[in-house]
Amino acid sequence: MQNFEYCNKTKIIFGKDTENTVGSETVQYAKRILLHHSGGSPVKSGLIARVKESLKKAGVEWVELDGVQPNPLLSLVLKGIDIVKKEKLNFILAVGGGSAIDSAKAIAMGAVNDGDVWDYFERKLTAEKALPVGAIVTIPAAGSESSVSCVVTNEQGPWKRSIKHECLRPVFAILNPELTYTLPPYQTACGISDMMSHIMERYFTKEPHVELTDELCEGAMRTIIRNAGKIFSGGEKDYDARAEIMWAGALAHNNLLSTGRIGDWASHALDHELTALFGIAHGAGLAIIFPAWMRYNIKEDTPRLARFAEKVWGVDGAYYDNEQAALEGIGRMENFFRSIGMPVKFADANLDAARIPELAKRAFHFGPLGTYRILYEKDIEAIYRIAAE
Amino acid sequence: MQNFEYCNKTKIIFGKDTENTVGSETVQYAKRILLHHSGGSPVKSGLIARVKESLKKAGVEWVELDGVQPNPLLSLVLKGIDIVKKEKLNFILAVGGGSAIDSAKAIAMGAVNDGDVWDYFERKLTAEKALPVGAIVTIPAAGSESSVSCVVTNEQGPWKRSIKHECLRPVFAILNPELTYTLPPYQTACGISDMMSHIMERYFTKEPHVELTDELCEGAMRTIIRNAGKIFSGGEKDYDARAEIMWAGALAHNNLLSTGRIGDWASHALDHELTALFGIAHGAGLAIIFPAWMRYNIKEDTPRLARFAEKVWGVDGAYYDNEQAALEGIGRMENFFRSIGMPVKFADANLDAARIPELAKRAFHFGPLGTYRILYEKDIEAIYRIAAE
Repeated sequence: MQNFEYCNKTKIIFGKDTENTVGSETVQYAKRILLHHSGGSPVKSGLIARVKESLKKAGVEWVELDGVQPNPLLSLVLKGIDIVKKEKLNFILAVGGGSAIDSAKAIAMGAVNDGDVWDYFERKLTAEKALPVGAIVTIPAAGSESSVSCVVTNEQGPWKRSIKHECLRPVFAILNPELTYTLPPYQTACGISDMMSHIMERYFTKEPHVELTDELCEGAMRTIIRNAGKIFSGGEKDYDARAEIMWAGALAHNNLLSTGRIGDWASHALDHELTALFGIAHGAGLAIIFPAWMRYNIKEDTPRLARFAEKVWGVDGAYYDNEQAALEGIGRMENFFRSIGMPVKFADANLDAARIPELAKRAFHFGPLGTYRILYEKDIEAIYRIAAE
Repeated sequence: MQNFEYCNKTKIIFGKDTENTVGSETVQYAKRILLHHSGGSPVKSGLIARVKESLKKAGVEWVELDGVQPNPLLSLVLKGIDIVKKEKLNFILAVGGGSAIDSAKAIAMGAVNDGDVWDYFERKLTAEKALPVGAIVTIPAAGSESSVSCVVTNEQGPWKRSIKHECLRPVFAILNPELTYTLPPYQTACGISDMMSHIMERYFTKEPHVELTDELCEGAMRTIIRNAGKIFSGGEKDYDARAEIMWAGALAHNNLLSTGRIGDWASHALDHELTALFGIAHGAGLAIIFPAWMRYNIKEDTPRLARFAEKVWGVDGAYYDNEQAALEGIGRMENFFRSIGMPVKFADANLDAARIPELAKRAFHFGPLGTYRILYEKDIEAIYRIAAE
């Protein structure tokens, strides 16, 4: 087990009607805020109206900036930074999924650090501070509500880049599973794929002796798989299934599950290029990349893949043939993703395999990827090719 | 699943040599502190000398108060409060196990709240603030290093009382598994029993649909059981086994494992009377109480006890006979406790069964206990009697 530091300061407020506490939580930080969301379903559902009512009651004033899109865009971030500076706002409240929260984080960072905000994403500058961010989550997926991560797309490229810093961890996160009842099935599925991937990135490590976190990862993955099954068999409004998924999505990415170990994160980088070039949803891209990444790595640490197959997917037989068990586990994972409507191959999402060399080149932009197995451009290309088979 | 709030602000600094960061962590809060410990093994081992070196380097001055005993005493707490006030100290650094940390928490609370500090434990007064506390953990057990709990014994009674408040959560906790290599086996075992109990208090709930936390609880218990086995079969200096136990001990009591559910805590109350009247170690008392509590509750929610038997103790056969599986699980738990040198019956620890009515009366002091099953004085007495069979 590696040495580690762990601290998660995000106050989680979980359960029914919790969005009505947003005013009293926010006013502890600021009286003038930026209210940031897509302008779509949170408005239509009446959520934004309830949020405003709660803010008003608490004496919090807001300037509204909507228009957040999936894979949030730098141009909107820049607009947000301008508004925050001009209006002297000192808190960003995001209402939505990972895109709204990440967009809010980028605004919060850009508003109090000099220079071009994109330079922080390009690793030319580093930021140590940001305005406080609060989140009301409507799409359990990215785990951004209690994570240090922030991913933004610069449409000039397009380049999709991520940064991580403790100052980007939201101060509070409000999670009401009822808000997820009306999510389109595709978005629910993308979220499930995303949170599974966050755990798998941490689970596949070569660090020996990380038993507790292995157990926590496996338990969280089993919980997601079981409850996804409930939601996708008529349980769209099953509160408890939605609640398990929502809480698992937050825990999947708050770094508890990485304590004592180092994550891989190559698959996320490979997926980022799929979303940047083809506009495919993050979760859908991950469902395509992960099985291919595992197949490419089947000899890398076969016992771990066999354990994954047994503990997470219920595969027997690892006692006799680890590789066979590992392959069976990957197959069950693909079946699971298909069962919730996720693609697992390029063809399922109509991605153009002819662009694989370009994808590989872009993914290699910052050099080799991963820690479980270091991937060079030829490895990356090979993984894309398996996904395109 | 119940609504919940969850936030854990304790900064965990985990791993080899981490005690050497204590100066740089402490100076972020204060320049004049109370250094609080037992005066025994942390001094002999050289740990206190290393701590002082680190504090000195960081420019932190200290006043030292040693003498902490297991089941920390009110008299020392009062002495600490006097010193802190007189010397105008504004941080308490505890070095030791749960006793040192709890004693530090009580001092931290008493130093900045008016009135008799014992009145807070008697629930006559409530405190909302305390000085910041930091901890260097030498005995993984109580989980006090990242919990809101504090237990102190008033030797006038003796009465053992606990309080819980967010202001009592340490600001940092330094956990170096190497510091636990030289623990006497009995203390290691008491700690293991204590952390298992913290999880079991949370695990036995009637709240339905708490799958994720069930999984996390079960995974943590399995990890503790496996690694206890390693330590007690020649692995006293097995870093990774000690590390799994130490990290599990902190997670067991930081409230993550209670999210969405309500804990029981009756067994802790029953144990408190054993330690108050007989001076038995907390962990040893819990190893006696828990099997008896489960046997008394065998009909209360047999499927949950059967699940516990299967998931935690590897018992098969719950498909046919839940009660038989549950009993087998309790038996395996008793065997486990015995295997690490814990008592599981009154006789194993030479406790006087004639005092059971007095124990029951004392345990009922604040009224009925528990939430899983509400226990009245006759129930409490019956559980003690099972433990004395």
